[in-house]
Amino acid sequence: MSKVNEYFDGNIKAINFENKGPLSIGVMEIGEYIFSTVAPERVTIIKGAITVKLPGRIEWKIYGTNDDFEVPGDSSFQMKVEQTTAYFCEYL
Amino acid sequence: MSKVNEYFDGNIKAINFENKGPLSIGVMEIGEYIFSTVAPERVTIIKGAITVKLPGRIEWKIYGTNDDFEVPGDSSFQMKVEQTTAYFCEYL
Repeated sequence: MSKVNEYFDGNIKAINFENKGPLSIGVMEIGEYIFSTVAPERVTIIKGAITVKLPGRIEWKIYGTNDDFEVPGDSSFQMKVEQTTAYFCEYL
Repeated sequence: MSKVNEYFDGNIKAINFENKGPLSIGVMEIGEYIFSTVAPERVTIIKGAITVKLPGRIEWKIYGTNDDFEVPGDSSFQMKVEQTTAYFCEYL
C-alpha cells in the first residue's frame, strides 16, 4: 500500500509506492531545500521547475517539466523551488 | 499549499496542488474504480498501466507509462488497475 510522507513542515509532500522497485511522487512548494540520498535516484519533473546543485558540482542547473537528473547514493543535493513543482523519483 | 486526499479507503492517494491552475498527482492500488469528474480533465500515466472505459464508449483501452487520456466534465469513467500506478491529472 502506498504511503504519504511530509517533509519540511509539509512544504514537500510525497507518496511512496512500489512498482518493480521503490518509487515516489511528490509536490514541492516554493523554498530552498537540501535532500539527502541513501540509494542513487533519478528525479523527473512532472510539472514545474527547480534549480538544482548536484553533489561535487559548482554550477546550479534548471530542470523543467519532463527534465530529469540523477543523484548518487549516500550524498545530498540542493534545490531552489521557485514555483510549486511535482516530481517523480525512481530509486536506482 | 498542496493537500493530500485519500479515496477508496486509501487505495487511491492524491496530492492536489496549484501551478497555473488546479492539478493533482496520485497513486492507485490494484482494484476497480469509478471516478466522477466536475471539470474536464487530462490524466497522464507517470508509471504503471490502467485499463479505462471512457463515458459513452463501449471498449476498454489500456493506458501505460506516458500515455494520457481526456475525460469530459460532469461525467464519470471506469478504471481497472492491475499494477500500482502513479498518475498526473490536469483540470482543463
